[in-house]
Amino acid sequence: MLVYDIPKTHRAAVYDKPGTISTKIVEVETPEPGPGDVLVRLTHSGVCHSDMGVMENSWRGLPMMVPPTQVGGHEGIGIIHKLGPGSENGRVKVGDRVGIKWVAYACGACAPCLEGKDGVCFNQKISGYYYPGTFQEYALAPANYVTPIPDGLSSQDAAPMLCAGVTTYSALRKCDAKSGQWVVISGAGGGLGHLATQIGARGMAYRIIGIDHGSKENLVKECGAEVFLDITKFDDKTLAAEVKKVTGGLGASAVIVCTAANRAYAQALDFLRFGGTLVCVGMPEGDSKPIEKAFPAVLVTQEWNIKGSAVGNQREALEVLDMAARGIVKTHLKVRKLEELTDVFHEMSEGKMQGRVVLDLQ
Amino acid sequence: MLVYDIPKTHRAAVYDKPGTISTKIVEVETPEPGPGDVLVRLTHSGVCHSDMGVMENSWRGLPMMVPPTQVGGHEGIGIIHKLGPGSENGRVKVGDRVGIKWVAYACGACAPCLEGKDGVCFNQKISGYYYPGTFQEYALAPANYVTPIPDGLSSQDAAPMLCAGVTTYSALRKCDAKSGQWVVISGAGGGLGHLATQIGARGMAYRIIGIDHGSKENLVKECGAEVFLDITKFDDKTLAAEVKKVTGGLGASAVIVCTAANRAYAQALDFLRFGGTLVCVGMPEGDSKPIEKAFPAVLVTQEWNIKGSAVGNQREALEVLDMAARGIVKTHLKVRKLEELTDVFHEMSEGKMQGRVVLDLQ
Amino acid sequence: MLVYDIPKTHRAAVYDKPGTISTKIVEVETPEPGPGDVLVRLTHSGVCHSDMGVMENSWRGLPMMVPPTQVGGHEGIGIIHKLGPGSENGRVKVGDRVGIKWVAYACGACAPCLEGKDGVCFNQKISGYYYPGTFQEYALAPANYVTPIPDGLSSQDAAPMLCAGVTTYSALRKCDAKSGQWVVISGAGGGLGHLATQIGARGMAYRIIGIDHGSKENLVKECGAEVFLDITKFDDKTLAAEVKKVTGGLGASAVIVCTAANRAYAQALDFLRFGGTLVCVGMPEGDSKPIEKAFPAVLVTQEWNIKGSAVGNQREALEVLDMAARGIVKTHLKVRKLEELTDVFHEMSEGKMQGRVVLDLQ
Amino acid sequence: MLVYDIPKTHRAAVYDKPGTISTKIVEVETPEPGPGDVLVRLTHSGVCHSDMGVMENSWRGLPMMVPPTQVGGHEGIGIIHKLGPGSENGRVKVGDRVGIKWVAYACGACAPCLEGKDGVCFNQKISGYYYPGTFQEYALAPANYVTPIPDGLSSQDAAPMLCAGVTTYSALRKCDAKSGQWVVISGAGGGLGHLATQIGARGMAYRIIGIDHGSKENLVKECGAEVFLDITKFDDKTLAAEVKKVTGGLGASAVIVCTAANRAYAQALDFLRFGGTLVCVGMPEGDSKPIEKAFPAVLVTQEWNIKGSAVGNQREALEVLDMAARGIVKTHLKVRKLEELTDVFHEMSEGKMQGRVVLDLQ
Repeated sequence: MLVYDIPKTHRAAVYDKPGTISTKIVEVETPEPGPGDVLVRLTHSGVCHSDMGVMENSWRGLPMMVPPTQVGGHEGIGIIHKLGPGSENGRVKVGDRVGIKWVAYACGACAPCLEGKDGVCFNQKISGYYYPGTFQEYALAPANYVTPIPDGLSSQDAAPMLCAGVTTYSALRKCDAKSGQWVVISGAGGGLGHLATQIGARGMAYRIIGIDHGSKENLVKECGAEVFLDITKFDDKTLAAEVKKVTGGLGASAVIVCTAANRAYAQALDFLRFGGTLVCVGMPEGDSKPIEKAFPAVLVTQEWNIKGSAVGNQREALEVLDMAARGIVKTHLKVRKLEELTDVFHEMSEGKMQGRVVLDLQ
Repeated sequence: MLVYDIPKTHRAAVYDKPGTISTKIVEVETPEPGPGDVLVRLTHSGVCHSDMGVMENSWRGLPMMVPPTQVGGHEGIGIIHKLGPGSENGRVKVGDRVGIKWVAYACGACAPCLEGKDGVCFNQKISGYYYPGTFQEYALAPANYVTPIPDGLSSQDAAPMLCAGVTTYSALRKCDAKSGQWVVISGAGGGLGHLATQIGARGMAYRIIGIDHGSKENLVKECGAEVFLDITKFDDKTLAAEVKKVTGGLGASAVIVCTAANRAYAQALDFLRFGGTLVCVGMPEGDSKPIEKAFPAVLVTQEWNIKGSAVGNQREALEVLDMAARGIVKTHLKVRKLEELTDVFHEMSEGKMQGRVVLDLQ
Repeated sequence: MLVYDIPKTHRAAVYDKPGTISTKIVEVETPEPGPGDVLVRLTHSGVCHSDMGVMENSWRGLPMMVPPTQVGGHEGIGIIHKLGPGSENGRVKVGDRVGIKWVAYACGACAPCLEGKDGVCFNQKISGYYYPGTFQEYALAPANYVTPIPDGLSSQDAAPMLCAGVTTYSALRKCDAKSGQWVVISGAGGGLGHLATQIGARGMAYRIIGIDHGSKENLVKECGAEVFLDITKFDDKTLAAEVKKVTGGLGASAVIVCTAANRAYAQALDFLRFGGTLVCVGMPEGDSKPIEKAFPAVLVTQEWNIKGSAVGNQREALEVLDMAARGIVKTHLKVRKLEELTDVFHEMSEGKMQGRVVLDLQ
Repeated sequence: MLVYDIPKTHRAAVYDKPGTISTKIVEVETPEPGPGDVLVRLTHSGVCHSDMGVMENSWRGLPMMVPPTQVGGHEGIGIIHKLGPGSENGRVKVGDRVGIKWVAYACGACAPCLEGKDGVCFNQKISGYYYPGTFQEYALAPANYVTPIPDGLSSQDAAPMLCAGVTTYSALRKCDAKSGQWVVISGAGGGLGHLATQIGARGMAYRIIGIDHGSKENLVKECGAEVFLDITKFDDKTLAAEVKKVTGGLGASAVIVCTAANRAYAQALDFLRFGGTLVCVGMPEGDSKPIEKAFPAVLVTQEWNIKGSAVGNQREALEVLDMAARGIVKTHLKVRKLEELTDVFHEMSEGKMQGRVVLDLQ
């Protein structure tokens, strides 16, 4: 039986000045796994825009500011080093490579869990928000809810699948389009959008129209979009007209809004064909605005649908990891060290970041 | 073979002063049925709020004012008196009792038709709008699209099923709730709502919460609502709280907004449980307002859905007529004469009308 | 905090002579709940035909004979008397009334569990088969998988819902019929069938045709069947013709075979309309025979479907318990004492049993 | 306006000796299009195995032998040369290129049509069976049911899509697998199977396991199968074991049986994972045999599904033609002349035919 040496303490990055961009590396006690838990030696963690929202408390409606001892992070990959009581004969064993997601724990028994919506579990614990996250070397996680990582997928490529990947995959699954139909990805060159484009085009056989700034054209086309529309070359009306033209006059079957811009939502409905579906993924910050053209009378006459899609469930996480292992989707990323985390957030805040960052925690 | 005498002319009510409430009975030529058509001797026609919208040109976005020769009406029941060429061996024959709906003609071949959405057919002809309607004694209709009326259902009871009935039935089918789950009917005592309540409660085994003014309580409960909430006794917040309480803390699986009030839409999302669905049916007049609380971030975190539902298709019309024939749904109505049509519209406009009106055209 | 005295040993009925009808009451040690488990003081247990199959080893394909120490039973209701480690802050607490089902434990993490098919969990433990069952006073069960029993439903009425109820409910959910459509229940007067009839007719608004021996006519009609067909008065051909006639010439949208007779399966397909669905629930014993008329060419031209439906999942168990609490479905049952269990099995074997038996374990 | 010269008579191939392989070219009268019809100048017609079944009367259950004047064929492509009365303002015009399918006419108004199942329309007319087919230069067809052919797809490539293409496409749509899941094509190198493989792999992003004789390996892999299994190298048990192995131990989500062999059906169920679906497409000739392993008890415990899939509907025909126009699916075919039709049938009968034959009728 595999036995690992486990240190008494380990390195962790905490949000030492909540409300501002600041992280600090501290030594924290390595916890003992309780009943049903496992201890994971993390080797990689993605850095997500949501982490910054938690640290800065910038999302309207976030119920609370994190304490200055909060360890952030929610895209963690590592090796199980120890099992808690009652996990001995379970689905995972010491030495397994597993992931920890935004929903670090789901109860499996509430109404959403029983409907396969563990991404909105009533008893969920959020990694890196009010539950210790993945910007550290060791973390606890539930034996029956950690996410096994398929062989043949590197840990750094696996990490972003646990949040960005599963979020976009789940949205595409909900969009009601059939393979062969047109789907618009709004923000197709962004962190979520470039994954949505690859998954939609190569993994689901949708015909993708990617919309973003002109500088993203090459990226978006490499990701599999059949058509790229440069947002800077159209106003809302001509953009909708162009989508209609591309789709043979009908409009797209679905639009996935991957950006957090209210304007993207205002545009999106007019891209749709009769009976089409707008899927909301990006969450605009600041004052809430309703979707600008969500007029009941127009929704009625067009039979349009609007759906909100949260983070995806465990099954979807396994499915998108399988797609990543098969080479269908790959994140544009850079590997950085834990020590660079504050810099990473500053770059993210200043819009300088190209692609996603994954921290090497080894 | 049944042969009917067909007069050269017949009585019809036209919107003689479009833009105002005014109808006038005139003699019009009885048309000869062309290829694929039948001539129907109408005996009854429902009077719908939409007819008034067409006559007064009061819907924002209606593309055109009707001419002063327009015959209105779109809930017609009658007997086939003559077949056009090519209809001899078809699905209907002379003497059959059939209905003419809002969508009087659907092409059967466009994208919506091929998806079973003939209610939004690209080539549809709208009865009583730009196609001669059912406020007259004889009307043409397509042999393969008239709606057979089941035996055992009176023509006056059948008429409102052709628009109000199928519209609410279709909305209930789209709401994604399962039998046994809670569905809120907003405007449950109104023309659409009292049908939605009966169909939902008795025809689909939903648990119905009816919301309306207190004066409608008895009607709504007779229609099968398990719970009635008096809109005048709550503000938006306490009304949502009451829905949560009634539904065991969870919220309703779906809300069907049958009224045309923007406020009803503003309230509706907060009635929903996670993953619930708001179905838009009522079309607010005047300046368009987006659904007030359709914030992307909230839709995302609650995984809420919004769906627009148009008039329903031919299959749904047959299904709701079957429910009516089985006694599951019955419209509260009064029978009036064609001569009274202008009065009927005035009463409708002044809010004095109790229940629906069906014209006797015999 | 509620604390219960827990005896060192308690009474249990074991299959002391596996392969024959024989049970014996013995004192067994009361176990200590481990991590994730709870200890339930059982007050009632249903007796199911499957228990007899396990005891007699009469199902073809059952992988093994139970040992003479096996405690049977899988429809148990009781009160949680103690929590195991790690269950302190969970979804259940000491004093809660809960149920134990055929699938006593599901892992929540395998492919079926992640698709909401925990009834076919790859790691399931079967109550009363190779895991200690509910014919005893105390049993262990997983804190996150016991089934909460709704207030207002007696424990004796709740017990049969945990297997017979959820099994038929799940089959009805899978049958693809819409409310208002015709569904045939084959074996409508039997243990499963009389529940299927009630759930289908009252809980889902299907139009039910019940088929059984003439002696069951009153029962089946009281359960809500709109039409009863006496199996003894028809041969296979005339029975199918009668179903067609009743359904207006079309055939039924679905057939649920609740009996374990190969002949019932042979008849069933011919009851169906184009595109209809046969749901298999009853499991014929003895030599396996394929469904007699499952000819590929006929399935193709009729677009018929055949579905196997296993025991149902946890969500469905909660939903059918909710229906029972609302008075929609009620089992015909008699309450007996644990001491009478061998007699009960003899009566069951001899076909003398009227309705279901629930043991009082208090 | 485009006007074509239409000859009084034209060439047609009739089944002059029904019950044997024999066709004869005769001059027949060119019909005048009636109300709702169009006259099509056919340029190409596929030759399908079903045509031989009709000619030889070899299908068990075919209700009647065709007369010696029957013109066969049901995969016709041509140009509309004349419109019948009432078609002047319709969806097609003189000069349009359209297709005629197995279901040459569907009523659009019966129960199947109203559910989008026009492939099983109660009032359908079958091209080349009891309705004049496409082995001739001119044929009548309904204006609202002919199938528009997309630009950029040659007529010879379009022809097989009208029957073989839409049949396999429809079966794949019904199989309930999601993109990224494993689907077995049984008979993957055959006339139907090589299309199913391309459509499934490239058009729907399934992972395809093709099963056929070893000689078909290259073809099947070129069509997009990820795995090929040589039927001659396995017995039923080891073949099922190999499918399990390839699919990571789970089994395939679906199997599409494209061959007409009873043995293929007997094998198919064991390829499936829990909850998987067998879709029946191929129709075994001769004495009907039920699917050998369709045991109710096994279907129940595995929650397996069996579905019959008929010819597909008009919407699906348009969708698969779109895939063909996009280069996703292409039939292996040879072009022959009408004079060679009897030879073609002899080659088909002797199993000498490689790929499909399309007749050039120009």
